[in-house]
Amino acid sequence: MIIIGIDPGIAIVGFGIVEYKGNHFRVISHGAITTDASESLPNRLEIIYTSLASLMEKYQPSAMAIEELFFNKNTKTALLVAQARGVAILAASLQNINIYEYTPLQVKQGVVGYGRADKKQMQTMVKTILNLEKIPKPDDVADALAVAVCHAHSGVFGNMFKIK
Amino acid sequence: MIIIGIDPGIAIVGFGIVEYKGNHFRVISHGAITTDASESLPNRLEIIYTSLASLMEKYQPSAMAIEELFFNKNTKTALLVAQARGVAILAASLQNINIYEYTPLQVKQGVVGYGRADKKQMQTMVKTILNLEKIPKPDDVADALAVAVCHAHSGVFGNMFKIK
Repeated sequence: MIIIGIDPGIAIVGFGIVEYKGNHFRVISHGAITTDASESLPNRLEIIYTSLASLMEKYQPSAMAIEELFFNKNTKTALLVAQARGVAILAASLQNINIYEYTPLQVKQGVVGYGRADKKQMQTMVKTILNLEKIPKPDDVADALAVAVCHAHSGVFGNMFKIK
Repeated sequence: MIIIGIDPGIAIVGFGIVEYKGNHFRVISHGAITTDASESLPNRLEIIYTSLASLMEKYQPSAMAIEELFFNKNTKTALLVAQARGVAILAASLQNINIYEYTPLQVKQGVVGYGRADKKQMQTMVKTILNLEKIPKPDDVADALAVAVCHAHSGVFGNMFKIK
């Protein structure tokens, strides 16, 4: 099973594409799609959409995993992230990729095993599980890989968090 | 000039397509794209995107006008609307349609002439300006037509609110 994990944002979209087969992970690709603040919102959304769509076309994941949107203190940022999240979900939906949503708590539980893990523990666990040489940077990439790992681990429980 | 005005939402997206030529309006099409709450979020976003994309393809507007996102009291709703707005903007951007954004205040000023107009005054003015037999329903359709009218009227001041 090939899984694409996404950490949506307007300036940085982290992505992590992993293969999960027989309890073993292989990282296929990971990185960040970045858009410049000097670009218009429509251009930024278009860059995010076309970049994700071509990654999905290239690697043909059967599932996309994404964190549930939660409201942070900065309203303006939250509304921008939500617009970016909309086009990320659209990209997967138009390619008939199954889409799964997890809360931050579920991601922690799915990666580290308990919901009170801090960022450093999460990142270290992602590095270990995926056999990476170092913690991927920026944080958005590590977060995207984390939600992909979470989805792989959740598989044993069935499609509990499937949203499409 | 053909303008598409959009009032984004997740359950109802209002749209109004008008032609503005020599100070005269002609309504080409108006209505609402609706999605059912029983559908998944990805399916709802896909319906909104593909419906808007085909309207734009059919009527070839040169401009899309949309209200600026403002934060309302219901966080969950705001984040859903923002995701829908993201795919609406994407649809226009991918078709190289110029995109213009207006605050609710600017829409009132552009339609009724002053920023303290209430909903009823706005709707009556939209009906009058566009020579419609009655106020379009639901409100989302009247709002979409209002932002299209606002954009046409703003044209004389130049592209002040162009975001792409």
